Amino acid sequence: MAYTAVELIELKRDGEPLPADGIEWLIAAYTDGTVPDYQMAAMAMAIVLNGMNAEELGVWTNAMLNSGDVLDLSDIPFPKVDKHSTGGVGDKISIPLAPLIAACGVTVPMMSGRGLGHTGGTLDKLESIPGFSPRIDQRRFREIVAAHNLVLAGQSETMVPADQKLYALRDSTGTVPSIPLISSSIMSKKLSEGLDGLLLDVKTGSGAFMKDLDGSRDLARTMVGVGIRSGVETVALITDMDQPLGHEVGNANEIKESVDVLNGHGPPDVTELTLAFGEVMLELAGIGGGRERLEETIASGSALAKLKEVTLALGGDPAVLQDTSLLETATFRSVLPSPGDGYVTRCDALTIGLAATRLGAGRERKEDGVDHGVGLTLHAKVGDRVARGEPLVTAVYGDEARWEAQRDKLASAWSIDELPPKTRPLIIERIDRSRI
Amino acid sequence: MAYTAVELIELKRDGEPLPADGIEWLIAAYTDGTVPDYQMAAMAMAIVLNGMNAEELGVWTNAMLNSGDVLDLSDIPFPKVDKHSTGGVGDKISIPLAPLIAACGVTVPMMSGRGLGHTGGTLDKLESIPGFSPRIDQRRFREIVAAHNLVLAGQSETMVPADQKLYALRDSTGTVPSIPLISSSIMSKKLSEGLDGLLLDVKTGSGAFMKDLDGSRDLARTMVGVGIRSGVETVALITDMDQPLGHEVGNANEIKESVDVLNGHGPPDVTELTLAFGEVMLELAGIGGGRERLEETIASGSALAKLKEVTLALGGDPAVLQDTSLLETATFRSVLPSPGDGYVTRCDALTIGLAATRLGAGRERKEDGVDHGVGLTLHAKVGDRVARGEPLVTAVYGDEARWEAQRDKLASAWSIDELPPKTRPLIIERIDRSRI
Repeated sequence: MAYTAVELIELKRDGEPLPADGIEWLIAAYTDGTVPDYQMAAMAMAIVLNGMNAEELGVWTNAMLNSGDVLDLSDIPFPKVDKHSTGGVGDKISIPLAPLIAACGVTVPMMSGRGLGHTGGTLDKLESIPGFSPRIDQRRFREIVAAHNLVLAGQSETMVPADQKLYALRDSTGTVPSIPLISSSIMSKKLSEGLDGLLLDVKTGSGAFMKDLDGSRDLARTMVGVGIRSGVETVALITDMDQPLGHEVGNANEIKESVDVLNGHGPPDVTELTLAFGEVMLELAGIGGGRERLEETIASGSALAKLKEVTLALGGDPAVLQDTSLLETATFRSVLPSPGDGYVTRCDALTIGLAATRLGAGRERKEDGVDHGVGLTLHAKVGDRVARGEPLVTAVYGDEARWEAQRDKLASAWSIDELPPKTRPLIIERIDRSRI
Repeated sequence: MAYTAVELIELKRDGEPLPADGIEWLIAAYTDGTVPDYQMAAMAMAIVLNGMNAEELGVWTNAMLNSGDVLDLSDIPFPKVDKHSTGGVGDKISIPLAPLIAACGVTVPMMSGRGLGHTGGTLDKLESIPGFSPRIDQRRFREIVAAHNLVLAGQSETMVPADQKLYALRDSTGTVPSIPLISSSIMSKKLSEGLDGLLLDVKTGSGAFMKDLDGSRDLARTMVGVGIRSGVETVALITDMDQPLGHEVGNANEIKESVDVLNGHGPPDVTELTLAFGEVMLELAGIGGGRERLEETIASGSALAKLKEVTLALGGDPAVLQDTSLLETATFRSVLPSPGDGYVTRCDALTIGLAATRLGAGRERKEDGVDHGVGLTLHAKVGDRVARGEPLVTAVYGDEARWEAQRDKLASAWSIDELPPKTRPLIIERIDRSRI
């Protein structure tokens, strides 16, 4: 081999670009254990501080992608499109969106993750459905996609192993916040799905990984660039995450709200994002009909039917999707009232997400479990008028001590003022091949 | 504990100073294995790229120093002064200097290292003396210092264990070139010797770790600052390392040249540095007499007698110091002639050091051994006039294939030109408490 790990680390440390064959060797050698964690940790920190250019990033992403199995769905005759969100609070959009798009004739081979910190994860939410088992092997994944045009599953351990290793390492070495490393992690996983098109929902605001719009725009442009250079048409929408999406936060709570959307009576913001994302995914799939087609597919019941169908295929009990009151609910219930009269000017996503996690709806460490029946129902969101004593939020939880520890922090998420707030739109910006 | 490793890494990544108790915890936890190599590797890279301020560096150095045993020589009634060189080619100065100073009544508890890459190491050179055993425990170290005012030994494994671990890690993670990390590594070892004064020889030029004067000056200032803030009067001299010191490079070769200095007929540059360093060390010890005293101590034979004395105490055979023709010499001998007439304008230390190493006089990896009888004798140095065909260098070596591989590279170390070169002084600058 023409390179040693130290030589490559030194190049990046000194601000030089890494050669393509060097990156390919490094990722392969890290995956098979030839390059130890401590060398990759030094490299990751050098990348956090000195960056990577678009060419390096493309090679790095492809090397990660090629570190394991890649799905070949070329025998499936439909357009294959997926959506990825950078993560937020109350962000259940994938759950109504994926079956809606699949019911329109687009194949959606969606691999999702679990929640960590203040953000929830699609797999945790789906596991609120009794029996739902998202850990399937590649063979079963292909069978379900072929039969239903849709799968909602976890990533197999044989896919993108370099990312699985590197992600854990970054988490314990302070090397998470790097646009190239975040982009290559996300894009290597998504590009391993054998897609024709990809929609990226890049969150911005208090509850997002990227708190400010500039950072979110950088991340969106970088990822769209990686996707398009890899031959997958990619569009990013930058969306607001200053407050949670919808009224429900927590696993069973969010399944209920997702079903509401597919029954045509979801909250306005969740419904709007589902339809707006759906329009872009139909466009990426080259399928016409737009919003009207999506609304008809919901109204006809075929989107909800598709969710039940894939739930059954993955071992879950679709009865809870028919009657969401059958979903698990935690034992205790408390309501926090508004301390005053006025307009809600702040309903802070990070604060609410952390409180939900600490009540048991999420996990602070990867190895923790989640309590599917724990959740929050937000009664007042930004712009709403509230009177003193009216409910701001209802919490359901299983541990009274945890509630005592969280209630004041949770209450601090809301600000009530005399004047109505200045708001920003739900969808802030679109980044596509014309804007990278 | 108030900190996690990730929190501390994140601070340094973001360009913030590390809190004192955080540094102390980190070094202790790294030494005992609580903090794994991969976290320290990320921290080391963040330090390489974002630096440390003087306060952090002082705490870091002291934490390293306190990671193991510290010598307490307070029962020895003489002033205790040591010298450290950042390493060069043909740099045998410690070998005549330490016994010379000890013979003047200064205690010199010198712990030295081994050669690596193109630079030689004092311990390797001393081991050319049959029987010389520099690996001694602390008890024996103290006995020898007390009896002879001098010891020339390796560092015990119980001293500065944090540095021993971190040094190996830096070597394999591209995190060597950092002035704070280099300074704390050197100074933690030297400050563990219980000194009153310390002379630092900071090399600059092709054969030095720091190739340019600005870098060398930064390093010198940083180390002098650490020493003085720790209560050890420290002076640095920045000295030239564009060409090797003296005429001899290699282990037995350099012992011979060291003995020449103590017999009063060493080469001018080695003699001059020995005396100039000796003057500063006497000054640091608060002992008068200066250069005259040093010259008398050489002329009286007591400096050479001191080297024989400590050699005997460390198991070595002083007979080879009486008659250096008894030192080991490798089997084969070749001479490279000058390709033309003129002035030597370049006699490149790095090229010569690498050739000597590859012939067997040094080691490329820590686990390699060295061949004490391999060496180079330089007949023409910068400023010398040579005629075509006159010898530039004589090599003695044990492996003809290695010689064939090195001879052209070695020859390329010399440039011969019509005009005499512009030269710089041997001692370029002094850095002390007035200049940090």
